[in-house]
Amino acid sequence: MLTDSNVANHYLIPCLSALQIGTENALVLPAGEATKSWQSAERVLDWLLAANLPRDAVLIALGGGVIGDLAGFCAAIYQRGIDFVQVPTTLLAQVDSSVGGKTGINHARGKNLIGAFHQPVAVVADTDTLKTLPARELKAGLAEVIKSAMLGDAALFRRLERDLDLLLGLDPDRIVDAIERCCRLKARIVGIDERERLSGGPRALLNLGHTFGHAIETFTRYESWLHGEAVAVGLCMAADLSMRTGAMTEKDAGRCTALVQRTGLPTRPPPGMTADDFLRLMSRDKKVVGGQLRLVLLHGIGEAQLSADFDPGLLQQTLEHFCAVPAAVDAAAPA
Amino acid sequence: MLTDSNVANHYLIPCLSALQIGTENALVLPAGEATKSWQSAERVLDWLLAANLPRDAVLIALGGGVIGDLAGFCAAIYQRGIDFVQVPTTLLAQVDSSVGGKTGINHARGKNLIGAFHQPVAVVADTDTLKTLPARELKAGLAEVIKSAMLGDAALFRRLERDLDLLLGLDPDRIVDAIERCCRLKARIVGIDERERLSGGPRALLNLGHTFGHAIETFTRYESWLHGEAVAVGLCMAADLSMRTGAMTEKDAGRCTALVQRTGLPTRPPPGMTADDFLRLMSRDKKVVGGQLRLVLLHGIGEAQLSADFDPGLLQQTLEHFCAVPAAVDAAAPA
Repeated sequence: MLTDSNVANHYLIPCLSALQIGTENALVLPAGEATKSWQSAERVLDWLLAANLPRDAVLIALGGGVIGDLAGFCAAIYQRGIDFVQVPTTLLAQVDSSVGGKTGINHARGKNLIGAFHQPVAVVADTDTLKTLPARELKAGLAEVIKSAMLGDAALFRRLERDLDLLLGLDPDRIVDAIERCCRLKARIVGIDERERLSGGPRALLNLGHTFGHAIETFTRYESWLHGEAVAVGLCMAADLSMRTGAMTEKDAGRCTALVQRTGLPTRPPPGMTADDFLRLMSRDKKVVGGQLRLVLLHGIGEAQLSADFDPGLLQQTLEHFCAVPAAVDAAAPA
Repeated sequence: MLTDSNVANHYLIPCLSALQIGTENALVLPAGEATKSWQSAERVLDWLLAANLPRDAVLIALGGGVIGDLAGFCAAIYQRGIDFVQVPTTLLAQVDSSVGGKTGINHARGKNLIGAFHQPVAVVADTDTLKTLPARELKAGLAEVIKSAMLGDAALFRRLERDLDLLLGLDPDRIVDAIERCCRLKARIVGIDERERLSGGPRALLNLGHTFGHAIETFTRYESWLHGEAVAVGLCMAADLSMRTGAMTEKDAGRCTALVQRTGLPTRPPPGMTADDFLRLMSRDKKVVGGQLRLVLLHGIGEAQLSADFDPGLLQQTLEHFCAVPAAVDAAAPA
C-alpha cells in the first residue's frame, strides 16, 4: 500500500486493519505534488523489490491524484506490470484521476511527461474520506464534477444547480450520485479510446476548460492555484468562447459561470495574466497539432465538441474579456 | 535514435544518412550491460524531453539487446508511450530480444526487474551488421537459435546440424533463414500471450534452458559468461533431464549437446559451481510458483512442455552429472 503522510494520519491504520496486514506493507511518502517524481518512483520500486514482491502482488494507492498516479506508474513498470487498486481519498481523484488508466510522474519540463496507460483492477471510492478533506480541495474537486456535467451530462448539471448546497455539505446520496455519474461518463469516453490513440478523439473532450486551465497553472508555476481552481476559470472561458462562436446561448453560458461562482471557485485568471500570456502558454499545449490550437467548445450544456476552426478573433475577445481588470476582486481567487 | 558507442562506430552515420537526419537526432550511450539502468533511462528521457519530441515521434533502437530493451522501455513511458523501431545489430537481438515486446532495465536486485510490455512498430534486422560482430557474440546468439529449434522447430534443428559451418561463416541465405524461422516461432508463441498473463502459458516455453542458465549467470555475477553461453549449458542440462525423465530419447539428447558443442559453446557449468548452488539460485527464479520449481522439458526435438511434476531426484542427478569435475577442461568455457 502506497500513501502519503496526510492520508496516513487519518486512514492508514484502518485500511491495514481491514486488510489484516501489518505496517510493513505500507510505504508513506511526503504529501504534495513534489512526490510525483522520478526519484519517488525509484524509491517505490526499490521498496517493492526489497520486499521481493511477486508478479501477482497488488499495489494499493491510498490517497489523492499524486499517490494514484505514482502508484499506477510504479505498478505499470514493476516486473513489467502488476495489478493495482485505486482507493482515492479526494473528490478530484474520486471523480477523475482514479478512472481512465492514466498514470505518471512529473518532470522538470512539465507535468505528467513520463508515464504509462495502466488500468486499475478496481477503484474503491469511500466518500467518508471526504469528511477530512479541506474545503478548498473539495471545491476544486467539484470543478471537475461541473466539467463532466458541462461536457456530457445535462441531467447532472441540473442536479448540481439544484443541490449544490447539499453537495458542499457532503450529503451522502447527492455526493455518491455525482461521483457515480462522473465515473460512468469518464469510463464511457475512455472506453472508446483507452490509450488516447485517436488524435482529436472523444478522450479530448475531457479536456474541456483544461487548455485555459493549464496556462493558468503554468503562469502561476503550479504554486498558488489548485488544478481544479484553474480548470474552474477555464470552464468559464470555454463557455464564453462557445457563446461568442454562437455554439452556445448566452443564457447557458451564464448558467455555467454562475454554477462555478456559487461553488466558491474562481472565475477570473490571476491578476497580471494577459491575453498574450494565455496565447503563448496555450501554444505549448500537448493538444496543439501542426501549430493549430484545438479547444473543446460547448454546443449547449452536456454537448461538447473539439474544434480547431474557430475564429481566432473570438478567442482574442474571450482572453481580453477575462484578462481585463475585474470590477471587483474575485473573492474566490487563490492568493 | 538511441545507440551505443560500439555500434555507433560502425553504423550510426550510415543510418542517419539513410534517414536524412543529423547527428543531433542521436544519443550515444556507453556500450555494455551497465547502460540498462534507471539512470540511463532518466538520461534518455531528459534528452527526449529537451528535444520536446511530440507524441507521434518514433524512437529507433540501433544496437543489441541492451539498447533495444532500454529504448523500448523509454518509448513505453515517454508521454505514456510513443512508437519505436528495433534495428537489432547482434544475432541475439535479431533472433530473440527484438521480438516480443519485452522491454526493461536492470536493478541492483536483478535483471529486467523494471520494464514494460511495448511492441515495436517494426523490427529491421540487417544481417550485414553481423559481419562486425565478435565471433564469441555470434556463437552466443546461435545458442538462442538452437534453443528455438529445440523447443519448436525440428526442421530448423536439422538445418542447423547440416549447415552449422555455413551459418558460422555467415552464409547470407542460411543466416536469413535461421533468423526468420526464430522470429516466426517467437512471434507465434508471444501472440498467444502477449503480456505473459498466463502463468505457465506458452510463453514459458521460450525459457527452455534459461532457468539453469540464469543460475549460471547469477553465480558468475554476470561478469564472465555471456547470456547465450549460459543458455547453451542450460540447453544441455534441460536435454539431459528430459532424457532422465524418459520424455526424450538418449539419442536426441545427444544430438542437442553435440550441436551446442560443435557451435563452440560451453556445455558445462563454470568450475566450482555445485548442485547446491544450482538449487539455491534456481529457487529464486521468477518462474517459481508456490515454492514449486517449474522447468521446460523436451518431448523430442521441437517439442517442449512446461513441467512441475518431474522427480526431484532426477534433477539432482542432472545437476550432479554436470557439476562433476569434467574429465577435460571445457575448451569453450569462458575464462
